[in-house]
Amino acid sequence: MLDTDHVTTLVVLDLIGIFVFSVTGALVAVRKHLDLFAATVLAGVTGLGGGFIRDVLIGATPPAALADWRYLLVPATAGVITFFFHPAIGRVERVVTLFDAFGLALFCVTGALKAVEYGLGPLPAALLGMVTGIGGGIMRDVLAGRVPVIFEGALYATPALAGAAVVVLLDGVGVPLGVVVVAGFGMCLGWRLLALVRGWQAPLPKGPANV
Amino acid sequence: MLDTDHVTTLVVLDLIGIFVFSVTGALVAVRKHLDLFAATVLAGVTGLGGGFIRDVLIGATPPAALADWRYLLVPATAGVITFFFHPAIGRVERVVTLFDAFGLALFCVTGALKAVEYGLGPLPAALLGMVTGIGGGIMRDVLAGRVPVIFEGALYATPALAGAAVVVLLDGVGVPLGVVVVAGFGMCLGWRLLALVRGWQAPLPKGPANV
Amino acid sequence: MLDTDHVTTLVVLDLIGIFVFSVTGALVAVRKHLDLFAATVLAGVTGLGGGFIRDVLIGATPPAALADWRYLLVPATAGVITFFFHPAIGRVERVVTLFDAFGLALFCVTGALKAVEYGLGPLPAALLGMVTGIGGGIMRDVLAGRVPVIFEGALYATPALAGAAVVVLLDGVGVPLGVVVVAGFGMCLGWRLLALVRGWQAPLPKGPANV
Repeated sequence: MLDTDHVTTLVVLDLIGIFVFSVTGALVAVRKHLDLFAATVLAGVTGLGGGFIRDVLIGATPPAALADWRYLLVPATAGVITFFFHPAIGRVERVVTLFDAFGLALFCVTGALKAVEYGLGPLPAALLGMVTGIGGGIMRDVLAGRVPVIFEGALYATPALAGAAVVVLLDGVGVPLGVVVVAGFGMCLGWRLLALVRGWQAPLPKGPANV
Repeated sequence: MLDTDHVTTLVVLDLIGIFVFSVTGALVAVRKHLDLFAATVLAGVTGLGGGFIRDVLIGATPPAALADWRYLLVPATAGVITFFFHPAIGRVERVVTLFDAFGLALFCVTGALKAVEYGLGPLPAALLGMVTGIGGGIMRDVLAGRVPVIFEGALYATPALAGAAVVVLLDGVGVPLGVVVVAGFGMCLGWRLLALVRGWQAPLPKGPANV
Repeated sequence: MLDTDHVTTLVVLDLIGIFVFSVTGALVAVRKHLDLFAATVLAGVTGLGGGFIRDVLIGATPPAALADWRYLLVPATAGVITFFFHPAIGRVERVVTLFDAFGLALFCVTGALKAVEYGLGPLPAALLGMVTGIGGGIMRDVLAGRVPVIFEGALYATPALAGAAVVVLLDGVGVPLGVVVVAGFGMCLGWRLLALVRGWQAPLPKGPANV
């Protein structure tokens, strides 16, 4: 397993990922002209929601974030900061999107590892890794009254699923944990950044949709 | 209890029900012009969501579908097929609606039986049977950004509740399982098909609604 | 702990709170011109949803409301009554809003106490108290296809959080339960009523939101 230094590193990375996800949640609230409370809630939901869905589904309740006040203060802080300084943050949104890709890559890895730890098979563990990465953003969009942005062509969930699948496969054949983490993280981050840079899109339906 | 042949039959029926529900989820995605990933997710949510809500509420986690890869591959397959062949599937939507009624009848029965098995009383067990049947479709509509269709007059939930209630009542007085299943299934399917054929609607509010 | 009389009092208060929350849920359904079934579902979701979210997150499944038929019949009754007599109820909406404040104060107290009882720390317990109070209304609005009203300036969640925080803090330093309940209840109810009377609003974002 991991020694203390590595655990500290993982927690710090995790908190950074939650912070960035939370910023995207609060930005959506501001752009919908919602109030300070909504900004904080959407921050928390976006930062922690994916992990909550995973933990509820695998029966790991109460979710770890509820047992550690740092995991609750980080999104609250991100929400308040974003609410008051949103024009400045909105101007560096490309930076936010970059960090968001980093958070996605981190969460698909930690989510898949936790599902494996709780005894789930390879396919559900990979799916739950993806859900950990994308669940918060989906809840954010539903609460803000819009169709989830990742449903409209953004190549976002597929890299998360790929990263989680790499984790599950390598972990399953006994590759050391450090390598597993780096490989899954790199797969998701690389694919997501390429999609951003090249403007790749998920396939949209063709032909008339007789409503 | 059931012998192996009956269990196999139940699993096959279950997978057919999930497949049809998943097709309706992917059709909604296509009609909202959402991407391939959304079609697959809405397929999975519609096919499995009702059972997930039930399992999370009764504490049966992880949900059974997460422990059996067939339950994950069926909605994924349904989503991909529907995405690419939606014009053909859209043309036979009346057939889809018929099979959907079959899935509803099946899920309200299996959902109620599982709730009883987990020790719930008659009233909550019947409600959870209904939730198993209608929960996936409600989640589908919320994720796709529309008010659940079953809230706007379609007679859909009432047959599911009636079927689940029949299951709970007959099972409670010791009727053999096979009879219980057939009676609950028939009650829900019959009522739903009659509602479709005769155009029955749930009551809509009367009088001015001072907003 | 509480003696039988006090338990009975608490259950009666709880059922009154659920009834009033359920009425607000059914009123939303009627105003969206949704059917009788939707009115009943939105009543149940509004009345019981906050407690369900709390119970699922802390692992207290099945939720208590599913083990007690009174907790299921009260919202169903409220939904049906509101559906048929909505013009009369709509005319006394100020009374409904007053009772709703009472329900909010009650639920933030009982929600926080239950979270403490399940071993959660002060910060998550206070948050779950708030979630118990506001979760049902958020689910109601999402299901009815609108942005949660408490996100758009209504001072509603902050009093609930304050009431829950008072409960957690006083309970943590050993204040007798009766005092804890009254103090938390009074904090939430007083703040909420003041906000209603004086028209206090939560802060809305300033400056251009570059969408």
